[in-house]
Amino acid sequence: MNVHGQHYRTIWLKEDDPAVVQIIDQRQLPFHFVVEDLTTVEAVAAAIQEMHVRGAGLIGATAGYGMMLAAFHAPRTSLLAFRAAVEADALQLKATRPTAVNLAWAVDRQLAAMRAAGDDIEAQIEAAVATARTIADEDADFCRRIGEHGVALIEEIARRKEGAPVNVLTHCNAGWLAFVDYGTATAPIYTAHDRGINVHVWVDETRPRNQGARLTAWELGQHGVPHTVIVDNAGGHLMQHDLVDLVIVGSDRTTYTGDVANKIGTYLKALAAHDNGVPFYVALPSSTIDWEMRDGLAEIPIEERDATEVRIMDGRSDDGIREILIMPESSRAANYAFDVTPARLVTGLITERGVCAASEASVLALYPEKRRV
Amino acid sequence: MNVHGQHYRTIWLKEDDPAVVQIIDQRQLPFHFVVEDLTTVEAVAAAIQEMHVRGAGLIGATAGYGMMLAAFHAPRTSLLAFRAAVEADALQLKATRPTAVNLAWAVDRQLAAMRAAGDDIEAQIEAAVATARTIADEDADFCRRIGEHGVALIEEIARRKEGAPVNVLTHCNAGWLAFVDYGTATAPIYTAHDRGINVHVWVDETRPRNQGARLTAWELGQHGVPHTVIVDNAGGHLMQHDLVDLVIVGSDRTTYTGDVANKIGTYLKALAAHDNGVPFYVALPSSTIDWEMRDGLAEIPIEERDATEVRIMDGRSDDGIREILIMPESSRAANYAFDVTPARLVTGLITERGVCAASEASVLALYPEKRRV
Repeated sequence: MNVHGQHYRTIWLKEDDPAVVQIIDQRQLPFHFVVEDLTTVEAVAAAIQEMHVRGAGLIGATAGYGMMLAAFHAPRTSLLAFRAAVEADALQLKATRPTAVNLAWAVDRQLAAMRAAGDDIEAQIEAAVATARTIADEDADFCRRIGEHGVALIEEIARRKEGAPVNVLTHCNAGWLAFVDYGTATAPIYTAHDRGINVHVWVDETRPRNQGARLTAWELGQHGVPHTVIVDNAGGHLMQHDLVDLVIVGSDRTTYTGDVANKIGTYLKALAAHDNGVPFYVALPSSTIDWEMRDGLAEIPIEERDATEVRIMDGRSDDGIREILIMPESSRAANYAFDVTPARLVTGLITERGVCAASEASVLALYPEKRRV
Repeated sequence: MNVHGQHYRTIWLKEDDPAVVQIIDQRQLPFHFVVEDLTTVEAVAAAIQEMHVRGAGLIGATAGYGMMLAAFHAPRTSLLAFRAAVEADALQLKATRPTAVNLAWAVDRQLAAMRAAGDDIEAQIEAAVATARTIADEDADFCRRIGEHGVALIEEIARRKEGAPVNVLTHCNAGWLAFVDYGTATAPIYTAHDRGINVHVWVDETRPRNQGARLTAWELGQHGVPHTVIVDNAGGHLMQHDLVDLVIVGSDRTTYTGDVANKIGTYLKALAAHDNGVPFYVALPSSTIDWEMRDGLAEIPIEERDATEVRIMDGRSDDGIREILIMPESSRAANYAFDVTPARLVTGLITERGVCAASEASVLALYPEKRRV
């Protein structure tokens, strides 16, 4: 999508030096737009671990490019030495964020591609370059297709409202910044905006890490999409007063029965949507569907993160980015990172193959190859 | 309730000088406990307007003491001059927060009491002193009674849980700090704690003004009540996992049919409580019941406040209280202050006369004098 009027992905190779991977240091957003050069596996590992990059799709793509750098810098003295170096780098990358599914998947895909290239080191390096590009392109393509399927929902409301803005509410950042391009929840929004539809986004702040206020608001603003930041408490009131036409959120994991694990607070918005007859959609690439779990509420483990994220906020002060304590020093805080929205509250899933109901039958109709015999 | 182990109200007369009104400067909480002396009507007006004090009950009590100071300092040269000065001060106090119902009510009550004292200036001053004390005492007494009625709900759960902690979730600050003592939503909690019941409170942060994280957490901590601060997004997840036994919130205005206007986000917690079979109670003095409105959602006006409250946070930094910007400079923000929880989601109302269902019939059974003929 656009930044300062120019098209960007979230990760790319430097124009005049394809041995340099470039990313946006997302820790600095929305206050500074900083492009960072990554030239070593160590730098890639640090960028993932310290969250210069985050989001399922982007972590996978970054790991893919990280393995490309591993191939560039591995010793070419012998096949054994080359493979040993590449495999050590693979372990280093995988260790950075052990729970990120796409990370291990991208690293393993690179190892397999290089192995498949045979015993020639140059051929293996070429395979690593091609695979890094393919992983990124596929991610962008899946998101683009989610946008094309999802935009129909927005177009239908736009027709009904005869030019009045279509108000979409979203929670957290399932945006361009979390993937290589387009995002998931944001993809239908960008597609609608680019087609000239009058779309306005209510952006949930998304405490405690404020990905909505910091990242979603920034990326929508850069692409020129009208939007308004609200506290997480406000969505119910907006829906009661007909100010939300559609909710679209992303998902960290969705069971094949349609239960959706997503950023903490998603469930509350789904309840409000249900209570007010507002359609509630979840946009997701099929890679985040869990084909084993039946009951999301009972089975999906919910990460409890460091309470510091609740206690301390950071933002821009007169003299740079500052941290402040926002509660009594001696009070305890708890920090549950995700919640599970049961399928009964989900109007539909928007996938790269199309839109389906949040039910086992509909999901398997779209992904028949996943049917058990 | 207790601060540093010593009993305090939120407003009182200085021990050795009853012409000095003392308050806690709540703007400094939770970081500094500052007692402020008020000796003039101007100082009282500033304390209300600039929110050194806030909360329905406390604003009323502060206005009552403000009128006492007005009587102290009015000229005694003639009855006419005395009355003119007192009435000018009354107007000044009323103008500080025009929408606060208790403010005008307390000022008018003082004017009526002084008028009823006859033509003797000294008698009018005595009436003002007595009325200021009565307004504060009544507020504390109503809250104490809300605590005694509401504690039965907690005791019943405690018996069922056989000593395991009773987990109460609350939103915003309907606490001691918003009234003269005890609070409303917190009164049953303090009563339970003082009776030795094992009670633990989930404190909703309450964006955007963070009254939960700043005030409720502080006052519970000072009184020794175990509590945990959570982001507003977390309550639904906690209820899904049986970690909340009871929700108690306050109310800014409740229709006689049981619809509850309270801090933005209350409705989302009521939906989650309903979805998970968690009892959802609203604690309120009958002074906040609106005897005219039938339909809270359609009729109660919702204040839209300055978006700066969403955009900027303040808290303690290494070098004092600092403000930080927490979203893109160029993004719009909206700030709806309250929402309305429909009666169908409210298990019951806890009033100074007892607990009743959130319905016209039950409310009028408790307040039969409000029946229309």
